[in-house]
Amino acid sequence: MNSDHLDKWIGRRKERRENFSLVSLFTLLIQGDITVLSTCLTVLESTRTDDQVLAKQLIESALPLSGNSIRIGITGVPGVGKSTFIESFGKLLTDQGHKVAVLAIDPSSSENGGSILGDKTRMTELSVNPKVFIRPTAAGATLGGVARKTRESIYLCEAAGFDVILIETVGVGQSETYVHSMVDFFLLLMLSGAGDELQGIKRGIMEMADALVITKADGDNEMKSKIAATAYKNAIHLFPPKKSNWIVPVLTCSSINNSGMQEVNKSIEGFSITTKANGWFAEHRKIQDSFWLKETLRDKILNEFFGDEKWLAALEQQEKMVYEGAISSFQAADNLYKQFKG
Amino acid sequence: MNSDHLDKWIGRRKERRENFSLVSLFTLLIQGDITVLSTCLTVLESTRTDDQVLAKQLIESALPLSGNSIRIGITGVPGVGKSTFIESFGKLLTDQGHKVAVLAIDPSSSENGGSILGDKTRMTELSVNPKVFIRPTAAGATLGGVARKTRESIYLCEAAGFDVILIETVGVGQSETYVHSMVDFFLLLMLSGAGDELQGIKRGIMEMADALVITKADGDNEMKSKIAATAYKNAIHLFPPKKSNWIVPVLTCSSINNSGMQEVNKSIEGFSITTKANGWFAEHRKIQDSFWLKETLRDKILNEFFGDEKWLAALEQQEKMVYEGAISSFQAADNLYKQFKG
Repeated sequence: MNSDHLDKWIGRRKERRENFSLVSLFTLLIQGDITVLSTCLTVLESTRTDDQVLAKQLIESALPLSGNSIRIGITGVPGVGKSTFIESFGKLLTDQGHKVAVLAIDPSSSENGGSILGDKTRMTELSVNPKVFIRPTAAGATLGGVARKTRESIYLCEAAGFDVILIETVGVGQSETYVHSMVDFFLLLMLSGAGDELQGIKRGIMEMADALVITKADGDNEMKSKIAATAYKNAIHLFPPKKSNWIVPVLTCSSINNSGMQEVNKSIEGFSITTKANGWFAEHRKIQDSFWLKETLRDKILNEFFGDEKWLAALEQQEKMVYEGAISSFQAADNLYKQFKG
Repeated sequence: MNSDHLDKWIGRRKERRENFSLVSLFTLLIQGDITVLSTCLTVLESTRTDDQVLAKQLIESALPLSGNSIRIGITGVPGVGKSTFIESFGKLLTDQGHKVAVLAIDPSSSENGGSILGDKTRMTELSVNPKVFIRPTAAGATLGGVARKTRESIYLCEAAGFDVILIETVGVGQSETYVHSMVDFFLLLMLSGAGDELQGIKRGIMEMADALVITKADGDNEMKSKIAATAYKNAIHLFPPKKSNWIVPVLTCSSINNSGMQEVNKSIEGFSITTKANGWFAEHRKIQDSFWLKETLRDKILNEFFGDEKWLAALEQQEKMVYEGAISSFQAADNLYKQFKG
């Protein structure tokens, strides 16, 4: 058992003379204790060996209690209004009695220190709503690593009783491929442009979407949004049919007017009913598991080298020689590999 | 020595009773024999063990003769006109006496079977120009693997005497990060939008660019392109200064009118002179080598598992159990890892 954060928590428990045990930790987690959930996610993200042991136990304990949620990915270019959409949509969900967890995968976060959800003040109402758990993007060295931890977080959130998981990402690259590999429903937010609506967002990302929602459909923009929606509907007709047999709706919404949120929610409910009936919902999760089996294995294999101080020091030495022009990068990779395989 | 293609080549040589040797192959390569270059790149891309041995020898032989080119990355969203730009720009370069190699990194290619440069007919003039070598995107299981092979191709093209290497990719995700890690100059092609010029292309990709070029600046579009260029110039001023100390120009061009190509070329020449003088050109290549050292090593380590039929069969078995719900993806990864470490 470890992690500095968890230590503090144990400290608090000890005041009541309660000895730490995984069972007592997990009991608090499944009661929906948000502080405990938050601490457990920190354990998941930790690179400390003892934390990783605990993380594994937590996931194993959570798995049988997980799965009873709808996992919704939300993407769109910067400026499309993801935060305000989640603020507005999240309120609707909690008003209906749902418990909502908001996670994020933000590839720029690890590089720049910024984070999509780092600033909870951007979701002022949601962040103080007791039925909502908001977690900034996981830390990690690689996008794959960050994504893997986010996926593991889903299981703990579900075990803690959250039945709607929203996963936010920026719609510009590889990250939504990862999000798509862990959500049931993929929501693409779009702005109504002026003519070139289909540009900007990669076709591949559009093809992943289970719903397109045009944001900021208010004021002067309302008519433009309706026109854009029609253009998207026509475009979507040309895409190959989805394996889920789901017909992708194109909707408009306004976070300012709180309009269109009911329709988005009805679409997601409709998707859930349809795909649970035709078997896709369960099938899709199985396909995702297979993807993540490989990702997890890849991480484990690479971690032997890249998670070991000794090898990182050897790497640094070879990097220096490459930099000085003494050897090529190919020779350096060969040297290290031979040393590693000993 | 191997690869089916190379076998055929040897066949032809044998008619002249010439025995195969690496030296004779390499002699033909450095004489700029395009058929031999093409065959050698096929060897690089091959996953056969004997081909990989030959590939390593080829790269080692090529390295001392490589580096004497300018490597130019060209990116932009689908529809921006990359092929027509390369057709027009490539002609200018060959008219000036350069030998031009056109390579590609297309992440969608491996999934969909399509390829940016698969259809050479899109570059009708260039493809029959004897001073030009066009190669479709490398085949490969992962984007990183495809990119690594493209980088290795650069060295062979340079050894074959090509002094301008153009590397094309689609400007929508992770692939341009890889391209950026292997080129000296990164050219971002853009369309003049209607107001929302800065949307669509991720800011991070824009920050990588050494020049922005607005395409299709002809006819009715010419004025719009000039306005867009001014908007981009203003936007770029807000970006942090580049390590190269290079001031990023914003240009316009038309592949139809063949206009603006001289200016693009002058920018690249200016960049080359400036950064060779201030040391960035060489420094940048060293930084890139260090990045690729890690990529190559990662590939080698993973290949032990993912390149071995035996382990792939074990993986398939575990995938089946995950699919059937018998075990979790985490347990499956654990099982495989334990077997692998055996």
